[in-house]
Amino acid sequence: MTRKQPTEAEVKAALEVIFARDSQVYQDRGFMRRIGFGKRPALINIDLANAWTREGNPFTCDGMDVIIPGVQKLLAASRARGIPIVYTSTAYKVPDGANSDAGLWGKKIPTEVLLEGSPDTAIDDRIAPLPNEQVIIKKRASAFHGTYLSSFLKAHNVDTVIVTGVTMAGCVRHTVEDAIAEGFRPIVVRECVGDRVWGVTEWNLFDIDAKFGDVEKLDTVLDYLHRIENEPR
Amino acid sequence: MTRKQPTEAEVKAALEVIFARDSQVYQDRGFMRRIGFGKRPALINIDLANAWTREGNPFTCDGMDVIIPGVQKLLAASRARGIPIVYTSTAYKVPDGANSDAGLWGKKIPTEVLLEGSPDTAIDDRIAPLPNEQVIIKKRASAFHGTYLSSFLKAHNVDTVIVTGVTMAGCVRHTVEDAIAEGFRPIVVRECVGDRVWGVTEWNLFDIDAKFGDVEKLDTVLDYLHRIENEPR
Amino acid sequence: MTRKQPTEAEVKAALEVIFARDSQVYQDRGFMRRIGFGKRPALINIDLANAWTREGNPFTCDGMDVIIPGVQKLLAASRARGIPIVYTSTAYKVPDGANSDAGLWGKKIPTEVLLEGSPDTAIDDRIAPLPNEQVIIKKRASAFHGTYLSSFLKAHNVDTVIVTGVTMAGCVRHTVEDAIAEGFRPIVVRECVGDRVWGVTEWNLFDIDAKFGDVEKLDTVLDYLHRIENEPR
Amino acid sequence: MTRKQPTEAEVKAALEVIFARDSQVYQDRGFMRRIGFGKRPALINIDLANAWTREGNPFTCDGMDVIIPGVQKLLAASRARGIPIVYTSTAYKVPDGANSDAGLWGKKIPTEVLLEGSPDTAIDDRIAPLPNEQVIIKKRASAFHGTYLSSFLKAHNVDTVIVTGVTMAGCVRHTVEDAIAEGFRPIVVRECVGDRVWGVTEWNLFDIDAKFGDVEKLDTVLDYLHRIENEPR
Repeated sequence: MTRKQPTEAEVKAALEVIFARDSQVYQDRGFMRRIGFGKRPALINIDLANAWTREGNPFTCDGMDVIIPGVQKLLAASRARGIPIVYTSTAYKVPDGANSDAGLWGKKIPTEVLLEGSPDTAIDDRIAPLPNEQVIIKKRASAFHGTYLSSFLKAHNVDTVIVTGVTMAGCVRHTVEDAIAEGFRPIVVRECVGDRVWGVTEWNLFDIDAKFGDVEKLDTVLDYLHRIENEPR
Repeated sequence: MTRKQPTEAEVKAALEVIFARDSQVYQDRGFMRRIGFGKRPALINIDLANAWTREGNPFTCDGMDVIIPGVQKLLAASRARGIPIVYTSTAYKVPDGANSDAGLWGKKIPTEVLLEGSPDTAIDDRIAPLPNEQVIIKKRASAFHGTYLSSFLKAHNVDTVIVTGVTMAGCVRHTVEDAIAEGFRPIVVRECVGDRVWGVTEWNLFDIDAKFGDVEKLDTVLDYLHRIENEPR
Repeated sequence: MTRKQPTEAEVKAALEVIFARDSQVYQDRGFMRRIGFGKRPALINIDLANAWTREGNPFTCDGMDVIIPGVQKLLAASRARGIPIVYTSTAYKVPDGANSDAGLWGKKIPTEVLLEGSPDTAIDDRIAPLPNEQVIIKKRASAFHGTYLSSFLKAHNVDTVIVTGVTMAGCVRHTVEDAIAEGFRPIVVRECVGDRVWGVTEWNLFDIDAKFGDVEKLDTVLDYLHRIENEPR
Repeated sequence: MTRKQPTEAEVKAALEVIFARDSQVYQDRGFMRRIGFGKRPALINIDLANAWTREGNPFTCDGMDVIIPGVQKLLAASRARGIPIVYTSTAYKVPDGANSDAGLWGKKIPTEVLLEGSPDTAIDDRIAPLPNEQVIIKKRASAFHGTYLSSFLKAHNVDTVIVTGVTMAGCVRHTVEDAIAEGFRPIVVRECVGDRVWGVTEWNLFDIDAKFGDVEKLDTVLDYLHRIENEPR
């Protein structure tokens, strides 16, 4: 374990060993419970805009060959059931100066490349929103912070949020933490989330599954969506 | 006082009598204190979009012949000092149905005429925002609810919000209540706020001045803006 | 209408004339719609603590001979149905200084007399909470601001809030505005709300009924509570 | 790396290798910037109550032999400068049932052992709060969620939050994410934070330092506190 250049597979193997030990502690103490699916889900796709899904941007993430097809299946199933669908993007009108809407985040990460209205911050057209689906432009990591997401979900009597997107260490994680805090059951779709550096997806999924929401396989979530009632709201 | 059709002047006179009595009670008990101006103001213009400022819309308000010139003066003074300037409009992408962002408000008021991106919900061009000024599209009455306004103001170290716009019984009042709750000193500019029915502007200004913020004359606010430091933030 | 000392009955009569005219404008324009009762209510009693319900405090309100018996009936009906019940009080640990939790509100109203843990800020024992009912100590006017009320209600799948208490121009109004913004149907119980100065209850109920929630008679609300299902949550 | 039982030192060594690689990616892309100290700090101690600081509770954390003395030094320096000091604890009046304030969190973690008013949820007396310091009882992971913390800090013109406590994977991380979102500079004190399972402190500090706040040594933070002005607020 002193090699300077482990492969990504070796990193994941090392993490699995740690997670196995930590899971034992959590389970012995009554953590890692299942929150379960509720009756009225919504689908929330976090920051699957071109800056994150395409090559060549500081925000570019890995794994889109798996994430995008997974989200396409979730969109089809969600639209068939008529459940609320929300996309987010993170974008700024004024990256810096006296009227900047970037807040303090530009002091940590390169928010200056995320311009509102630019192609980079538009949703990837392989999973394009329909005209009546909400695209929420957020300014912070969480899809709930400084947005109308929570009251949108409550007004539609949603009790469960199915979460996809990027990044696990940033916007997806903060969104999930806020979701359970607000009173919504968070379900993170394993194949449909990602990030841009090694290990970070695995670690944040581990923390979430221990404390904040359930991490579920795509097939499990699709089965759930096929089973729920198609009802007027 | 049994006449069926008092004039607007008579309505105002009747309200003044009530306010005089009520003010005595409030003052005897320690209400109606002055919150005062802070050191770092921002200007917040509530819903001065065409649906409210022009004739012919269900949301049309009175008094634009006084409100608009007053806001023009505040904009000039604020821009000269480089303080943050925010406009709001209330507008919806999807007025009804499973993906509506109108929440429950359409069950009380005609939100269905406020379409995001339409000329009706664009800011009145007599007080047009500059390219680097924030126009926040809100979904609820308060400019703070479901928006990034509070964290925008905090990140710029604002301590005082100068509030103009419409309507006094709705969006201006709720914004002022939230402003003091959040920790900002609310200053409502007397000549620059209004509404669409008799008495409602006066009554809500009375309640605000008693409990939530200071109602100040335009000249007083302009004097304050001229006196503050023009400083980098 | 120029008399200096109208009676309270004359004040109310004058307001009724104004409201009749204003209501016509609102109705012609599509305001004053009915939001209606939902399926899962909660009862929210605002600031019915001794500082407001008993004589001799700056915060003392009128009308407790009607409000208290009304709330007793609502409590009985709500407990029989097993719906969530929340009381609020407004109270401070540190009224002023570097660690004060009064925020800026002490600059407008006498928050310094509302000490957390004192008899004044305890709920009136004529409507005492049961051990398993929530008493939320808030710091601001709205029961939602800076409290866990919204996520409490969402986690219990509440869709309707039945609101009682004081004051109409302050905490009740701000709570109702926030309730509809958050996605809950606000129902204000006409006989169970009040304030401490003339006219202010009537005016704020008028504004609320026009825009933010339905004002309903106590009997109507009791009928509704008797009709809903007594269900496990 | 296939051994089933690595030691804690080996786990940390493996993580360091991963972090070195990931840091390179972040720095190449413009992440991992320094947010820096502001002018008006507050000290926020997260969940240093007996359930977390003492042996024998499901929530018991490691490392108190270092965390507690560090927090003692921070408290002394903060009190000498008169800056706002806040402690949090997580506790529930009603762990389950129709009036539970645990929200959905009890479906993931053992919230049922955290009773409001019990010795377990009282702040550890080795770092006891003074009578005029705020102890905020929160219901969710973040110290900001459903509490008056944000408006308390804004009303005191705070721009920087110095964060200590537990757990890194839960309440400390969520608090830090919310802090920068709200517009406060988060500074996490390296020696004064912890958790209860291997690796989780290191990983969450890595994610935070990359994106949400600065992780600083205790000595650096103490130096900063000694340098700031002791000023009336």
